[in-house]
Amino acid sequence: MASISNAFSLSLPSNRIANSSSDFNPITSALSGLDSGEFSPGRVAVSKPSGIGGRICANATPVMDQPVGEKSSGAPTIVEVDLGNRSYPIYIGSGLFDQPELLQNFDRHVHGKKVIVVTNTTIAPLYLDKVVEALTKGNTAVSVEYVILPDGEKFKDMDTLMKVFDKAIESRLDRRCTFVALGGGVIGDMCGFAAASFLVNFIQIPTTVMAQVDSSVGGKTGINHPLGKNLIGAFYQPQCVLIDTDTLDTLPDRELASGLAEVIKYGLIRDAEFFQWQEKNMEKLIARNPNALAYAIKRSCENKAEVVSFDEKESGLRATLNLGHTFGHAIETGFGYGQWLHGEAVAAGMVMAVDMSYRLGWIDSSIVKRVDDILLRAKLPTAPPETMTVEMFKSVMAVDKKVADGLLRLILLKGPLGNCVFTGEYDRKALDDTLSAFCKS
Amino acid sequence: MASISNAFSLSLPSNRIANSSSDFNPITSALSGLDSGEFSPGRVAVSKPSGIGGRICANATPVMDQPVGEKSSGAPTIVEVDLGNRSYPIYIGSGLFDQPELLQNFDRHVHGKKVIVVTNTTIAPLYLDKVVEALTKGNTAVSVEYVILPDGEKFKDMDTLMKVFDKAIESRLDRRCTFVALGGGVIGDMCGFAAASFLVNFIQIPTTVMAQVDSSVGGKTGINHPLGKNLIGAFYQPQCVLIDTDTLDTLPDRELASGLAEVIKYGLIRDAEFFQWQEKNMEKLIARNPNALAYAIKRSCENKAEVVSFDEKESGLRATLNLGHTFGHAIETGFGYGQWLHGEAVAAGMVMAVDMSYRLGWIDSSIVKRVDDILLRAKLPTAPPETMTVEMFKSVMAVDKKVADGLLRLILLKGPLGNCVFTGEYDRKALDDTLSAFCKS
Repeated sequence: MASISNAFSLSLPSNRIANSSSDFNPITSALSGLDSGEFSPGRVAVSKPSGIGGRICANATPVMDQPVGEKSSGAPTIVEVDLGNRSYPIYIGSGLFDQPELLQNFDRHVHGKKVIVVTNTTIAPLYLDKVVEALTKGNTAVSVEYVILPDGEKFKDMDTLMKVFDKAIESRLDRRCTFVALGGGVIGDMCGFAAASFLVNFIQIPTTVMAQVDSSVGGKTGINHPLGKNLIGAFYQPQCVLIDTDTLDTLPDRELASGLAEVIKYGLIRDAEFFQWQEKNMEKLIARNPNALAYAIKRSCENKAEVVSFDEKESGLRATLNLGHTFGHAIETGFGYGQWLHGEAVAAGMVMAVDMSYRLGWIDSSIVKRVDDILLRAKLPTAPPETMTVEMFKSVMAVDKKVADGLLRLILLKGPLGNCVFTGEYDRKALDDTLSAFCKS
Repeated sequence: MASISNAFSLSLPSNRIANSSSDFNPITSALSGLDSGEFSPGRVAVSKPSGIGGRICANATPVMDQPVGEKSSGAPTIVEVDLGNRSYPIYIGSGLFDQPELLQNFDRHVHGKKVIVVTNTTIAPLYLDKVVEALTKGNTAVSVEYVILPDGEKFKDMDTLMKVFDKAIESRLDRRCTFVALGGGVIGDMCGFAAASFLVNFIQIPTTVMAQVDSSVGGKTGINHPLGKNLIGAFYQPQCVLIDTDTLDTLPDRELASGLAEVIKYGLIRDAEFFQWQEKNMEKLIARNPNALAYAIKRSCENKAEVVSFDEKESGLRATLNLGHTFGHAIETGFGYGQWLHGEAVAAGMVMAVDMSYRLGWIDSSIVKRVDDILLRAKLPTAPPETMTVEMFKSVMAVDKKVADGLLRLILLKGPLGNCVFTGEYDRKALDDTLSAFCKS
């Protein structure tokens, strides 16, 4: 039974991928049919025999509204983020909340006896009890507090952050406690920044595709400022990331598509084979084929982990993960946080970055078309909101974190698919032309 | 001409002390008369001949109200904080604001072309212009913004911190800019935390004894929470610390005494010789003898730098710098921030820690008396405010950052003068007895 680590070894040194082909793993084994584009829908849609691994529910309706079948737990796939003494594992799999030993690895993951779970009003009714049980089952020494924040990007601010500190301090949590982020990217970023500023360890339990493939990995934490996204924050690595793919059962369609924007991004900037795989399998991802999603998450985490281990503090390479994000942030900020989801704004932003790359003569027109096509199939926008003006873009982009000494650096595609540059050296006219082409002046 | 690095070499490896005896240095040279208690007031009070070094003004009245004599600049004393690739120098001397080359070491200290000076309403009229001039003199490429915060511990909060972010973002500062903290400990802690959370470099220019001997060195940054001091923050090292001892000319008497509490602390926890020197020279420090102050600052920085290089993140040794601080923080929090200065609270706290150490049988009664005596001579309190109750102490101490798994660890003296322990293993009755002895039940 072949492991996927063979099929896509081009850009990933094998020592970064745990669970090599010699270890039996239900997820990678089930995914072997996805190799090299040889995706066989018949094999993937079938539930695995009981005893081999967890069944991943693919239904889009909330888990509460459907009869939940018995889920057995399989060993998770592990992707290691290699950062010296700050290295940590990403566990990926189905039924991981039913495996208390993963979180209760107290020496490595949970420090001290007190844990505070930071979550939001949407996720708490779905998964808070499960996570509390996973943290405490068979262990009475651990006490768990929780704080439930309002849901949404517009609450990713200092006032909401203070609620975490209030709860932690009122609960007399000390430096040996652990913060647990249970939710999407907003919760992960805020909880991580709270942990950084409280000098304690934290764990990421992402429940959206967006958080699972991107924001929970790599230690970027922070909050928004009224004038710009993520302007206040810290680099602070978690103790581990636990991705229970079952949480995607309850994810709204729009959120699913939003996360796929980042999946597509990895293909564009550094992993052409992964992009080709997505071109073959996009409908399966949208239809929540569990194995396709699990593979996309794993492959995305591997890409992210590799980039982060090369450039933790974003001195260069890591910035390439922000393809489309500068335009996208402008959309989010100019249009108002929370109107568009992050991935939707990034999708439109990627189209703009690709358009600009083409205007500069750096890529072939076929790439422009392929990007447009795949985003449409992922049900993502391919242009900014109609109300966005050139001036709105320019004013927000001027305070982007990637401005250095007044010069706006952008991630642009250059060369064959899977190649990009992070540069401030480009013809300003191309940027102006792109902005004019996509919005009112 | 002997250097002080010989006289007090017991606890400091010589490689940590820059400016060895072979380098002529006006401050260490002038200070040679302070060796080994052989302090000669006649030699120190005299201004040094012009051309040798800067004259240190010793007058307590504001510098604006007195004729300011011509100050020539001497080479600063340099204490290195040894933290690998995050090492940095502490420059100590008179007239350093008149040496633009120190701050304008752009490769090493100031990054990018934009600088924001964070200061307060008290310090801005005194030194902001000087610092802006030092940053820009002969260099038009640097632009300097500033933000002037209200003065005082009670403004060391999230709302005030946001004003720094507001200014930085409105001024379109990017990640290559540098934040400069110009002021006392509150400004240094807030500006440092703002820089940490904005992912930019920063420089400390402390203007109080407290900040010069303690808070500006070692990278502890943060703000207060209504329920406790410094509960929100980060470890974040500056690019350099610039201590212009002339700024002490304008320091109020109470602030001077407050800073001396930390100077006395270094003697108690790890430097008995320094404590003995203080016993001989306390009246000179209180009278602002410039050379005595410069020596006390340098020696304190050396002690702090050494502790920090052994234990940057306060896993053990560094906690000993908090002698008296747990009791002191309880006073500050229970009594209301800003009623007592930090050093005043620490002084009373040290008396309580010393009392408790004696009750535990860990120190001789002579140390209790010597601590009481030197604090009185430094015009510092030797007991908490009369309104403090046992319950007020206990409730604040319960949320102290040094609580680990519910156990309050304290720094207590043990053994001969200059020795201490950081421990949670002590008879709780001694703590209760100390609290009862010093306050109402």
